[in-house]
Amino acid sequence: MPDPTPAPLARLEAQTRLLLGPGPSVMEPSVLSALALPTIGHLDPAFLSVMDEVRAMLSCLIGATDGMVTPISGTGSAGMEAAVVNLIEPGDRAVIGVAGVFGGRMAEVARRAGAEVVTVEVEFGQRLEVEALRAAVAGKPTKLIGLVHAETSTGMLQPLEGLSDLAAETDSLLLVDAVTSLAGHPIDVGASGIDALYSGTQKCLSCPPGLAPLYLSERALAVLRGRKFPVQSWYLDLGLIESYWGAERAYHHTAPINMLYALHEALRLVHAEGLEARYERHARTARAAVAGLSELGLMPKVPAERRLNPLTSVAIPEGVDDAAVRGRLLHEWGIEIGGGLGPWKGAAWRIGLMGAGSRRANVESLTAALANALGRQDRAGAALSAIEAAYA
Amino acid sequence: MPDPTPAPLARLEAQTRLLLGPGPSVMEPSVLSALALPTIGHLDPAFLSVMDEVRAMLSCLIGATDGMVTPISGTGSAGMEAAVVNLIEPGDRAVIGVAGVFGGRMAEVARRAGAEVVTVEVEFGQRLEVEALRAAVAGKPTKLIGLVHAETSTGMLQPLEGLSDLAAETDSLLLVDAVTSLAGHPIDVGASGIDALYSGTQKCLSCPPGLAPLYLSERALAVLRGRKFPVQSWYLDLGLIESYWGAERAYHHTAPINMLYALHEALRLVHAEGLEARYERHARTARAAVAGLSELGLMPKVPAERRLNPLTSVAIPEGVDDAAVRGRLLHEWGIEIGGGLGPWKGAAWRIGLMGAGSRRANVESLTAALANALGRQDRAGAALSAIEAAYA
Repeated sequence: MPDPTPAPLARLEAQTRLLLGPGPSVMEPSVLSALALPTIGHLDPAFLSVMDEVRAMLSCLIGATDGMVTPISGTGSAGMEAAVVNLIEPGDRAVIGVAGVFGGRMAEVARRAGAEVVTVEVEFGQRLEVEALRAAVAGKPTKLIGLVHAETSTGMLQPLEGLSDLAAETDSLLLVDAVTSLAGHPIDVGASGIDALYSGTQKCLSCPPGLAPLYLSERALAVLRGRKFPVQSWYLDLGLIESYWGAERAYHHTAPINMLYALHEALRLVHAEGLEARYERHARTARAAVAGLSELGLMPKVPAERRLNPLTSVAIPEGVDDAAVRGRLLHEWGIEIGGGLGPWKGAAWRIGLMGAGSRRANVESLTAALANALGRQDRAGAALSAIEAAYA
Repeated sequence: MPDPTPAPLARLEAQTRLLLGPGPSVMEPSVLSALALPTIGHLDPAFLSVMDEVRAMLSCLIGATDGMVTPISGTGSAGMEAAVVNLIEPGDRAVIGVAGVFGGRMAEVARRAGAEVVTVEVEFGQRLEVEALRAAVAGKPTKLIGLVHAETSTGMLQPLEGLSDLAAETDSLLLVDAVTSLAGHPIDVGASGIDALYSGTQKCLSCPPGLAPLYLSERALAVLRGRKFPVQSWYLDLGLIESYWGAERAYHHTAPINMLYALHEALRLVHAEGLEARYERHARTARAAVAGLSELGLMPKVPAERRLNPLTSVAIPEGVDDAAVRGRLLHEWGIEIGGGLGPWKGAAWRIGLMGAGSRRANVESLTAALANALGRQDRAGAALSAIEAAYA
């Protein structure tokens, strides 16, 4: 417990970091400017129109033409929990694919919601196969099939093909974690037959952490309306939340006003750039990063065909001190990258080139800093040439 | 569902409002400046020290010398839910005092956590008596006695005397909602024997909405550690949250970095002013507001001896159109006040003079605007004189 009589503290100083870890990510200045706009009331007509515009831009981003789209007032994990607790009732069966930390988290959240959880597990970096999920459903009534589109702990991109057929055949709902893919990889909830999807603001949306965009399809909403028991969370009850975000405008909880300003600006920038251009930018930057880092001996942990663009995991070479190198990057160059999680702790670095951070100058800065920190200055020229070639 | 192809949207414009409703409240410019400081990583050493300072300043504010103090990553209602779901296990008995909307919300949250809830209800504006709560405990094993210190729906201040004795006698935990009192009325969790307390940032702390300061006593932490079942919410699991906020620094969820910057600055301003001076300022401003508004025929709904300082409810006079007057205040004067909730809908206005908003100039602005909007210009001089007298 801290001393209860703290000495007078100074105002916070700005810290400058180049955020190339698994999030939060680099932001455009206009997002921080929007964040600091004067707070107004959560029932002010001017704020209600901000909400409507956020909703419209989010819907467009994920291809939602039906259902419900709402930012949850919490970080990405609150979005995960909101999706799960609204759809699961005690005793429901859920099949959850676990290919990393965040799949494991989804399974745990479902257990705590009272689900009978069957996990389908693959090794870190591997992807889940539809047939394995089908085998886990095993013809038994299953409420939910959940998995992670972009596994932030590994940098693996999970294909979504075939999953909606599986959900339809088995009368299950398809839940997808898009925390690290939203606005960095294409997502189309309609075309993919997704029933529930959540994300976070601090990844490819390049917005501060604190909100979790969430989508439920009409089919998922029907399940929600037909529940036998109340949703275990009052704060995350989407029926109550919709009564505020929808036409009724009934007070539920006080919306995080300023965070929604920032999300509005972040989404505006996404649409101003254009979705195709944004996805292509992420792809080119990721290719360039892998090209450059490989020249330094930092090899990707995930093969190209299932590799995320916004987040690349590389193996830490033999004999390199994980914490020492990340510490030097942070303190000497002001660059943050992420360490490994779970079985990859000490074995991998996670490099995020997300949203506004996904650009050539950042790849080059990181490559130069890593060449120094690893004592591989002799490879710096080759690495920069490889980056240039990737952009040619 | 909105049109999935929104036209290009403009950047948000700043809206200027004088926030004199039940929250969000008027903010100091330095809080918004802190909010917009560059985002850094949630495991960055510079951020960990922000967390430590926030914790120390919050502990000092509530008089906590033991237990756990943490801002929950959600609004005040998330703080309520965090307190309840960490302490309640399915089948536990809880006695909840209901003297307004927020007491009712606490009862509903406890029911959803699986509690057998016994409510003690009094009319809007009334306060709860210790003997009535004792009668509801009725000698039965009771896990939790919960009530609201500052009922935001009515403007009633609940005395806390005698409650810790009741909790000790009955081996219950004492849970207190301090959403609208924290930093506006004195709170001392040690002296009051409070086991769990939560608040919100958008009231007397004068910070944007989005965080919920929360306290658990050592006794409450022992109950948490001794649970038979996991906490139903993974996101709000205080054991996991403490592993990030405490010495371990283990990643749980990505903290809302920028909101914590803002809370740091808001707390810094609280302590720079001094707690006694701040409470006295709120008391003087509330007295002046009641004096002035009474001259306009706007009589307080709650008698002086149990009236909150940060929030005053006044009766809407006969024949006055609630929505029309609030609409004119907002659109012509840029002033927000709150409408009534529950049985007081259409019958009361809620006037918040909270944190940075609790000052004479705001009382006078509101009084002048209301004199105009109510057609009581003839009483404006008397009202301003009454305000002056209250400050003499």
